[in-house]
Amino acid sequence: MTRTGMDGQGMGIDLNSDMGESYGRWSLGDDRALLGVVSSANIACGFHAGDPAGILGTVTDAVRHGVTIGAHVSYNDLAGFGRRFVDEQPRDLTAEIIYQIGALQALAATVGGSVRYVKPHGALYNRIVDDRRHAAAVVDAISAMGASIGLLTLPGSVVGEMADKAGIAVYREAFADRAYTPEGRLVPRTRPGAVISDVDAVTARVRDLVTTGHITAIDGSRIAIEADSVCVHADSPGALEMAGAIRRQLSDDGVTVTAFAGTGRVRRRQG
Amino acid sequence: MTRTGMDGQGMGIDLNSDMGESYGRWSLGDDRALLGVVSSANIACGFHAGDPAGILGTVTDAVRHGVTIGAHVSYNDLAGFGRRFVDEQPRDLTAEIIYQIGALQALAATVGGSVRYVKPHGALYNRIVDDRRHAAAVVDAISAMGASIGLLTLPGSVVGEMADKAGIAVYREAFADRAYTPEGRLVPRTRPGAVISDVDAVTARVRDLVTTGHITAIDGSRIAIEADSVCVHADSPGALEMAGAIRRQLSDDGVTVTAFAGTGRVRRRQG
Amino acid sequence: MTRTGMDGQGMGIDLNSDMGESYGRWSLGDDRALLGVVSSANIACGFHAGDPAGILGTVTDAVRHGVTIGAHVSYNDLAGFGRRFVDEQPRDLTAEIIYQIGALQALAATVGGSVRYVKPHGALYNRIVDDRRHAAAVVDAISAMGASIGLLTLPGSVVGEMADKAGIAVYREAFADRAYTPEGRLVPRTRPGAVISDVDAVTARVRDLVTTGHITAIDGSRIAIEADSVCVHADSPGALEMAGAIRRQLSDDGVTVTAFAGTGRVRRRQG
Amino acid sequence: MTRTGMDGQGMGIDLNSDMGESYGRWSLGDDRALLGVVSSANIACGFHAGDPAGILGTVTDAVRHGVTIGAHVSYNDLAGFGRRFVDEQPRDLTAEIIYQIGALQALAATVGGSVRYVKPHGALYNRIVDDRRHAAAVVDAISAMGASIGLLTLPGSVVGEMADKAGIAVYREAFADRAYTPEGRLVPRTRPGAVISDVDAVTARVRDLVTTGHITAIDGSRIAIEADSVCVHADSPGALEMAGAIRRQLSDDGVTVTAFAGTGRVRRRQG
Repeated sequence: MTRTGMDGQGMGIDLNSDMGESYGRWSLGDDRALLGVVSSANIACGFHAGDPAGILGTVTDAVRHGVTIGAHVSYNDLAGFGRRFVDEQPRDLTAEIIYQIGALQALAATVGGSVRYVKPHGALYNRIVDDRRHAAAVVDAISAMGASIGLLTLPGSVVGEMADKAGIAVYREAFADRAYTPEGRLVPRTRPGAVISDVDAVTARVRDLVTTGHITAIDGSRIAIEADSVCVHADSPGALEMAGAIRRQLSDDGVTVTAFAGTGRVRRRQG
Repeated sequence: MTRTGMDGQGMGIDLNSDMGESYGRWSLGDDRALLGVVSSANIACGFHAGDPAGILGTVTDAVRHGVTIGAHVSYNDLAGFGRRFVDEQPRDLTAEIIYQIGALQALAATVGGSVRYVKPHGALYNRIVDDRRHAAAVVDAISAMGASIGLLTLPGSVVGEMADKAGIAVYREAFADRAYTPEGRLVPRTRPGAVISDVDAVTARVRDLVTTGHITAIDGSRIAIEADSVCVHADSPGALEMAGAIRRQLSDDGVTVTAFAGTGRVRRRQG
Repeated sequence: MTRTGMDGQGMGIDLNSDMGESYGRWSLGDDRALLGVVSSANIACGFHAGDPAGILGTVTDAVRHGVTIGAHVSYNDLAGFGRRFVDEQPRDLTAEIIYQIGALQALAATVGGSVRYVKPHGALYNRIVDDRRHAAAVVDAISAMGASIGLLTLPGSVVGEMADKAGIAVYREAFADRAYTPEGRLVPRTRPGAVISDVDAVTARVRDLVTTGHITAIDGSRIAIEADSVCVHADSPGALEMAGAIRRQLSDDGVTVTAFAGTGRVRRRQG
Repeated sequence: MTRTGMDGQGMGIDLNSDMGESYGRWSLGDDRALLGVVSSANIACGFHAGDPAGILGTVTDAVRHGVTIGAHVSYNDLAGFGRRFVDEQPRDLTAEIIYQIGALQALAATVGGSVRYVKPHGALYNRIVDDRRHAAAVVDAISAMGASIGLLTLPGSVVGEMADKAGIAVYREAFADRAYTPEGRLVPRTRPGAVISDVDAVTARVRDLVTTGHITAIDGSRIAIEADSVCVHADSPGALEMAGAIRRQLSDDGVTVTAFAGTGRVRRRQG
C-alpha cells in the first residue's frame, strides 16, 4: 500500500494539482477553490505559464491554506504551454530549472513559504520518464539547489531512479482518472478507456489505491501501485468538481490528506 | 570625500559594471576581462538580457574573481533591452523584481555566491530617480527579500531616499565619463561635452573624486560628490580599455578597489 | 447624424469588436458568437495577444461570416496585453506595425480575406489620441502599406487628424457603454457613471446615436457624435449578451449593420 | 553540372547567406558587407532572430543592392536561435510560417522588395530533410501563400520532394565549406574533416562545382552535385572574408553570380 499503514495512526495521502497557470490578461484554473482541496500545489514558474504577480498571489494563498509549494518547472515555451518537447542542451536546461526554482522560492519566501519539491511540467515531465540526458539535467538542477527539495515523478521513471541515486527525496505520483496497463503504466490517451471521467469511478479508485495499495488495471487484473501523491486536475469545471468529490470521499473514509513533503517524514526509496 | 578617510588605512573605492548581457546566440560585452577590473558586477537577470546558462557562467566567474554580485533588474522588455519606459502597475513591477533577484540568487548560490545589492537597469534606473510610484515598487521588492540586500543608485534620487527610510543600505554611484552640472546632476547626453571619451581625462576625474571627494563641473566649478562606487562601461573595446586604465591609475595612486557591499561595512546614510 | 441619411436607402452602422485574443493554451472571448453580431473584427496580430494558428482560425471564421478584417496592432507587450504604454522609438513602432499588418494580411489572404483597416489596441490606442510622435509612427506604417487600409480611431484624435492629412481613410468610433462629457469626450473610467452596464440603456443609446446622430451626455445635454462604427465588447458573458441585444435592437429598428470599410464607400473627412 | 551550360551564354551560380539576425540591442553579422557578395539573402523573420526595424533595414539594403529576398523562417525559439527542434503541431507550424513570410513581405514591400523564396532555418531546415510531418507543414504554408514563392533546400530532401509535387519551385543548395560523403550527403560536423576552413580550398571547390557540376567527396571520389545556389556563411570575420574570396574567384573565372529566384527562369525539377 501507499503512504499508510495499519499502524493505528490512520491513513494519509497527498493530493497535488497544477496552479499559477494564468498569464497576464489570461486566466486559467481556479487556484483558490483548489487550495481547499489539495495538500500540494505545483506552481508555474513563468516558463510555460505564470507571471510574477500571479505567482505571488498563488503562493500567498497556498501559504494561507497550509498547502505545500512545489516548483512546476518547464521547457522555455510560453507559446506552447510547455507541452512541446524542446531539444535543449542539458546545460541550458539545468540553468533554466535553477532559475525557475529560485524565482519561485524568492516569491514564496516573501510570504513565509518555501519550495519543497519540483514537479517537471508537460513535455519535460514526459520526456524524462525515459530520456537520461534531460533527466540528468533536472537532477543536476535539484542537486545544485542544495536544499531539501524533493522530486515528484512517475513511479519507475528514469529521472526518479537518477534522483534517488543523487540523494534527492523522490515522491511517486498516481493518476486517479487514468487507466493503467497490467504492467502498471498509464494507458496512452489515444486508446479507448484511457481517461476515466465518471466522478464515482475515479473516487472509488482513489479509495482503492489508498486503502489497499492496489488498483484495477484496464484488463481487470489487480496491480500494486506505490504512490505518495494522487494528481487531480483542475483545468475545467468538471475537473474541479471531481477533485472536491475525491477529497470528500477520502475524508468520509477517514483518510487524511496531507503533504508528502515538508512533514519531516523519512525519505523512502523510489519504487 | 567618498568612501575614504585620512585614517591611515588608505583610500578605497568600488568600481561597478554591467555584465551577463548576452542572450542565447547573441554575445555582448567581455565579462571575463571586466571581472579583472571591477569589484562589483551588475548582472542581468533575464528581463532585459541574460539567459540562465549565460548568467550562471558570469556568476561563476564573478565568484572566482571575488567580485561582488548585484542584481541588474529591469522592466520586462527583452526587445528594447530594458531601455524603454514601460508603464507597469507597481504590484506587477514589485513581483517582477523579486522574481529576478530570486532567479539570480539561486544561480549564484550554486557556485557559492550571493546577491548583495540591486542596481535597477536602463529605463527603470532613470525613472525611479524621480517617479515615486515605481521607486516604491523597487523598494518594496528589496524590502520583501528580507536579506541584507542594498541598493545602488544616483545620489539624491527619490528611490535612494525611500530605500533609506525603509532601512535598506543605499550606495551612491558616480559616473567617471559623464560631465556634471554645477548642481551635481549629470549633463544630459544630448548636450555637447556630456560624455567624456578621453582616457586620461576620465582617469584623472576618478582620481580627483576618490582623493578629494570633489569633481570639476562642466562650468569649471568644484563640486562635492559623495560616491561609494564609480560606474565603468564595457560595451565597446574602447570602454573596456578605459576601465582597465582607471583601475591601473587607482592602483598607482594607492587606492584600493573594493566592493561597497559584502564587506561588513556599517551602512551609511544616503546623501 | 452618422453614416446614414434620410435618403430613402435606410440607415446603417458598423459594429466592431476585438477578436483573436487567445494565446496558446489560453482562451479569451467567444469569437464565433461575436462574428454573428458585428460587421468589423479587430483581430489581434501577436504583439498583445494572438498566436498564428489562433489568428488563422479567427480570420477563417470572419471570412465565412462576411465580417470585415481589421488589424488590432499593439505595442510589443504580451505580458501586459498591450495595455501599458511602452516608450518605443517611433521607427521601431512603425516597423512593428507594418510587421503585424503584414502577418495578419498573409494569414487572411490564405482564406480569401484582406486587412481593410487598422485599429490600434489598448495603450497605443489611447496614447495616439494626443501623442504626435507615436501617432506619426502609426500613420507612417499605414501609409507605407500603400494599399487601401483605413484607420479606426476616436473622433477628434491627433492620429485621426494626421492620418486624414496623409490621405488615409479615417473612421470614427463611438462607445455605446461609455458616458460622454458635454464636450463629446469619454468620461474617465475612474468617475462614477462612466460605464453603462444596463443592456436596455446601452441599446437605447445606440439607437439614439444611429437614428439622430446625437447622444445624451452625462449632464443631460444633447451632443452630436459623428460615428462610423460602434464598439461592442466581448470579454465577458455579459458583454457578449449586450452585443447581441444591440444587434437585435438595430435589426428591429430597421438599421442595417454593415462594415464601414470594404464597401466601396467614398472616404469621409474625419470629424 | 549546375545552373550552367556550354551554351555560349556563360555560367552562373547563386550565392546565398543568412542576414537580418540582429535583435534589439544585439548585433550579429555584417549585412551590408555581405550584400556586396551574395545574390540571395535569407532574412530572419523574428522567430529565431530579427526585430521589425532591423529587418526593415536589411530589406532596404537588399533592395538597393539588387539582392533577392528569401524568408528565413524558423521554429518559435528566440532563446535558442531556432537551433533546437521544437515538437510543434503541424497546423501551428504552418500558421507560424505564413505569419513570418507575411511580416517579411510587408516590410519588403514598403521598399519595393518582395519575398521570392523560403529557406527554413536551423533546426527546422535539418528536421524537414527527413520528417514528413513538419515538411508537409512547411509545404502547406508556402502553397497557401499562393504567390510565386520557391523553396531553397538540400538536394534529395523530403521537403524538396513534397514541395515539388505541390508545384512549388524547388532550388537546391550546396555547401562550399562542408565535406561530402561519396553518396552526396554532408559529412556530419562531429566527424574530422567535416568543415573546410581554408579559403583557397573552399574557393576551388566552388569553382569545381560550378564549372563541372561535380565535387570531390571526402574519400577522394568524384560526385555529381546539382546546385542552384551555394551557401556562404557570415557569422565571423573569417567567414565574411571567405565569402568575398569566393565571389572574386567566380568573377575571375567568368562565372556570373545571379539569383536563382526572380529571374524568370523556368522552374527545374528537384534532383
